[in-house]
Amino acid sequence: DVNPDLASERQTASFSVEKLTAWLDGGAEHTRMRRAVVEAIECDPVFSRENQYFQTQNERYEEAVRKAVHLQKKMHEMGWTDNGPEYKYIYRALAGDVAFLLHRIFMRSISVLGSDKQVAKWIPLASQYQIIGSYAQTELGHGTYLQGLETTAVFDITSQEFILNTPKISAMKWWPGDMGRSATHTVVFAQLYIHGKCYGIHPFIVQIRSLQDHSLCPGITAGDIGPKMSFEHADNGFLMLQNVHVPRENMLNKFCEVQPDGNYVRWGSQKINYFTMTTVRISLLSDEVIMPVMKACTIAIRYSVVRRQSMLKPGEQEAKILDYQTQQEKLLPQLAAAYAFHFINDYLQNLFNTAYREIQRKNFDMLPELHAFSSGFKAMVTQYCTSAVEICLRACGGHGYSLLSGLPSLYTKILASCIYEGENTILLLQTARFLIKCFMAASTGQPVPPSVAYLAAVKPGKCPAKNKLHFLNPDIYTEAYQHMAARLVSSTAAKLQNLIQSGVKKHDAWNQCTVQLAQAAKAHCHYITVKNFAETVEKLKTQAGIQKIMKHLCDLFALHGIFSNGGVFLHDGYISGAQMDMVTASYLDLLPVIRKDAVPLVDAFDFTDKSLNSALGSYDGQVYQRLYEWAQKSPTNKQMSPAYEKYLKPLLHNKLSKL
Amino acid sequence: DVNPDLASERQTASFSVEKLTAWLDGGAEHTRMRRAVVEAIECDPVFSRENQYFQTQNERYEEAVRKAVHLQKKMHEMGWTDNGPEYKYIYRALAGDVAFLLHRIFMRSISVLGSDKQVAKWIPLASQYQIIGSYAQTELGHGTYLQGLETTAVFDITSQEFILNTPKISAMKWWPGDMGRSATHTVVFAQLYIHGKCYGIHPFIVQIRSLQDHSLCPGITAGDIGPKMSFEHADNGFLMLQNVHVPRENMLNKFCEVQPDGNYVRWGSQKINYFTMTTVRISLLSDEVIMPVMKACTIAIRYSVVRRQSMLKPGEQEAKILDYQTQQEKLLPQLAAAYAFHFINDYLQNLFNTAYREIQRKNFDMLPELHAFSSGFKAMVTQYCTSAVEICLRACGGHGYSLLSGLPSLYTKILASCIYEGENTILLLQTARFLIKCFMAASTGQPVPPSVAYLAAVKPGKCPAKNKLHFLNPDIYTEAYQHMAARLVSSTAAKLQNLIQSGVKKHDAWNQCTVQLAQAAKAHCHYITVKNFAETVEKLKTQAGIQKIMKHLCDLFALHGIFSNGGVFLHDGYISGAQMDMVTASYLDLLPVIRKDAVPLVDAFDFTDKSLNSALGSYDGQVYQRLYEWAQKSPTNKQMSPAYEKYLKPLLHNKLSKL
Repeated sequence: DVNPDLASERQTASFSVEKLTAWLDGGAEHTRMRRAVVEAIECDPVFSRENQYFQTQNERYEEAVRKAVHLQKKMHEMGWTDNGPEYKYIYRALAGDVAFLLHRIFMRSISVLGSDKQVAKWIPLASQYQIIGSYAQTELGHGTYLQGLETTAVFDITSQEFILNTPKISAMKWWPGDMGRSATHTVVFAQLYIHGKCYGIHPFIVQIRSLQDHSLCPGITAGDIGPKMSFEHADNGFLMLQNVHVPRENMLNKFCEVQPDGNYVRWGSQKINYFTMTTVRISLLSDEVIMPVMKACTIAIRYSVVRRQSMLKPGEQEAKILDYQTQQEKLLPQLAAAYAFHFINDYLQNLFNTAYREIQRKNFDMLPELHAFSSGFKAMVTQYCTSAVEICLRACGGHGYSLLSGLPSLYTKILASCIYEGENTILLLQTARFLIKCFMAASTGQPVPPSVAYLAAVKPGKCPAKNKLHFLNPDIYTEAYQHMAARLVSSTAAKLQNLIQSGVKKHDAWNQCTVQLAQAAKAHCHYITVKNFAETVEKLKTQAGIQKIMKHLCDLFALHGIFSNGGVFLHDGYISGAQMDMVTASYLDLLPVIRKDAVPLVDAFDFTDKSLNSALGSYDGQVYQRLYEWAQKSPTNKQMSPAYEKYLKPLLHNKLSKL
Repeated sequence: DVNPDLASERQTASFSVEKLTAWLDGGAEHTRMRRAVVEAIECDPVFSRENQYFQTQNERYEEAVRKAVHLQKKMHEMGWTDNGPEYKYIYRALAGDVAFLLHRIFMRSISVLGSDKQVAKWIPLASQYQIIGSYAQTELGHGTYLQGLETTAVFDITSQEFILNTPKISAMKWWPGDMGRSATHTVVFAQLYIHGKCYGIHPFIVQIRSLQDHSLCPGITAGDIGPKMSFEHADNGFLMLQNVHVPRENMLNKFCEVQPDGNYVRWGSQKINYFTMTTVRISLLSDEVIMPVMKACTIAIRYSVVRRQSMLKPGEQEAKILDYQTQQEKLLPQLAAAYAFHFINDYLQNLFNTAYREIQRKNFDMLPELHAFSSGFKAMVTQYCTSAVEICLRACGGHGYSLLSGLPSLYTKILASCIYEGENTILLLQTARFLIKCFMAASTGQPVPPSVAYLAAVKPGKCPAKNKLHFLNPDIYTEAYQHMAARLVSSTAAKLQNLIQSGVKKHDAWNQCTVQLAQAAKAHCHYITVKNFAETVEKLKTQAGIQKIMKHLCDLFALHGIFSNGGVFLHDGYISGAQMDMVTASYLDLLPVIRKDAVPLVDAFDFTDKSLNSALGSYDGQVYQRLYEWAQKSPTNKQMSPAYEKYLKPLLHNKLSKL
């Protein structure tokens, strides 16, 4: 039985939900395949997440391992392979609560950084789970700044081994997933020393637990780092190394090698060590960042047409909360952002695929641009989406705060994406460095990548819009974003130059500009996202119904950005106060238009109830029924707490059962 | 042993930390008393929070009840009373993990809404814990809009009883604290019916559990609503009533009464029912909202001078992260906000005390202003502070994400404050309604309360600042805030008028303005906060060292607000683009100035290590040591997980212990 308030929302869709889903999936055949994978996973009771909200960290871990191991079997059974087309749907279907994701990064780093011989030895063992791997880069005292890592690997010619050590407590490896309790091996990043000379960080395969009884290997101290804000299922670990000997062959040596005599040879850029990180940054966006926003929007929007509160018109029944402008203004821009980032993810995937083909041919030319893009977008998208999920959570009032809504776990998990794989501010500053460099090059006529060519064309100007409808023209708003991004880059470059010319040392000048540099980098990514959204809509010419609603969402995404960041558009008068009123009017006008299609627009994301795991967001909208049913399953309702006998009974008035 | 990086920060304070603490406490004698209370609580092992991060919901609840009951004894032992001066320090010392807070609201509602006879009967029982009370207002389908509550109380003349019912699932009481497992009684808000006529919502004392065996009373279904994002210790509950009979005397009847013949008499404003909510909104700010921000700042700032990352100057050691402009720009404005809200809280307390004296004398004139202020500030302060805590959490990188940092639990708890006691958007709109009304009155020359008299004086104008130093003049920025707030109120009032004049129905017109109305209400509160901060600093004339640093913080708070909300200041040209550059320059200049005193400024909040319960934020700065020690106590490290035997052992390569 679908709640009638929700059912009525589906009768008036201005487009075919099924067609939109197919388009988002890249074709109806992909939709069919995805649904088949999801169905196969969800009908298997091992993969159930039914008790997730009631489990302890220990229970979550055990389940996650169970699922990871079972998945192996399942894949074999279903004929799915790691390189098959079904693969990318599996993790979407599992919805994250599965172990050995770092094991996968262990494998990827061997594939990218290991020699053919190393790949041949380790990958078959790892892919059968005959060994479990982890990826030990971060240290207790050292994160994104890899050069600061303190773990040492000293080459000993006599034994032909590397001797690894954790010289002090801040050098302890800390955070690596799958390492706290599961891993038998890990890739350890350490400073390589040969004959007392440091060659910088290098990756080494290190065994940390016995394959026979899982006990820690000699010289190894390891364990779990304890509870976190989410990721209860993951055994993020610590690792201390005391004179751990590793054979010479265990340094990953596709791009460099230590020869038996201690001679150090390098064939590729040192930067290739960063490549695994770069690929991870891009690959995490879809499943770990954009998918959660789509889920949060689905939950919040469905709930907002079931939930009624107060009267919108006197004398009528209480109104659906999605009919309030303020609720629309909270949720619909997040919905538009979910679409915007789905499209930018495609853009980044293409960029990455091109670059990867080049790297395979040992051409590293695209690395700087790829690094700048992956850094900036990782930072911008994770930050935007984290805030989007939080807005969805808050927009559901008290019930959003219940774990049973599914929103708290989406939020606490996506928040981590702002931190892992590179702290966002540091990443933005890396993008900014690239932008400033390109701006300088462009302004002296040197060639720059096409994506940043616009920086050459900064000039004062005014937005030509004359009325609020003009702001529904993608050229008008894309241009405004471009102008704003270019202005922020150029004015920060000017500030930097002025400081240096006035005698401030280069590094101090840089530091004094970093707030504005980070802002400029974000503005650049925002601009590219708007531009890419507009271009995606433009290309959609054949599917009129879908194009129309996508155009609305694109307009909303763009105008929301101008409305919420008014200062940077008004600053140099490119947009005037009167034009800002037009932006506001057009922006607010879009809300009730998109609101009509809000439910179909989230239905098109095509999440199953099991994958949402939300009492508020189910397809049938039976919100209150489900909250009540689920609450009754809580361990808190299974028995009377010992607190009654121990503490309350002795105090309570007990002469009469009733007062 | 204090970490030397942290120790050095304390040697250069520009003021006396002890004097600042005393001033914040309202005098050295208060500081002494507070410390004595904290000391007495913290040295008692029953109140320890040492295992908090490792406990389940059931364990947390049991501990919370134990603490609440023990507190009773402790208070008796120490000679502390509910009305004594020590009282307000107790909850600060307990740091929240204690049961029966709703029991207190149960008592407060009886004190405020009950007759003398009712007070005499119930308060002694409750204060001895002979009964445990709760406050059952919110329903599964109904929150802030009290008129929508569906629970019914029908007066039955024959039996002289009220018969209470939950007519459908959405009418179930849902969320009340202390109700899921503890309460024997609760105040239930229900629609009163006499002879078929509805008299609106009224409060009734209802017994829900037996005093002899704690079993549910006839007609009662109740339990715990399950896991939430935080508040694991609290038994938020559900309650369904089926023909529950309550004697006539159990309706709280200080302001109205149902007489034996069914005659309904009222002596006070119906609005008095809202008064408990109003007082709760104001009273929660200090302990539940401002204190957590102070703690988060303490943790993040201390950690940021211990944590080092990357090089600021080439060739030097890695820099303290607080020396980066971006880190200063994250944390120092939050520190300034913590002070700003500490002062606004004093302001609101005074306002409330004045109003309460009037209400005692049955003069309800100040209720509208009090309601508008408590609503707006509750919304604005909780929203600002929640975001502040999140910024602190993110600014600590990965370690901030560990529960052991203390930051996740501060965040998940303060987030709830945006939702409970009135959803923030609804509250802002109530404030906006008051502001619009006052603006209309003021513009026709009618009298308005002094706090909103500025609305009468909206006129176009320009900020007179000529250089960046002018923006360090409180008159300059206070005026800018005033202008901006008044402009937002007046332009929204104009839009509302225009819509109505163009034929849009009043309620539709209101809805179409709500995004801007909420913005205007926030702007008003922001203005009052800045003004109050500036006046507080002004009054401080005698304590020069403290005044100087407080002036810096006030400037920072104000300029941060202009910098981050540039659009609303630039919009009508009151501040020009060139002036905005001055604001930015002054704002960024302040960061390194305040940074020098950052540690002393958080030390002055005077939190003990136990109260922070943070591996990152302790006074001695032994961050890495403590993270490692605490992690080892996690239940995840107590034994090998069954997952190994069950799932991993069968797969792992076990022919050789070492590969």
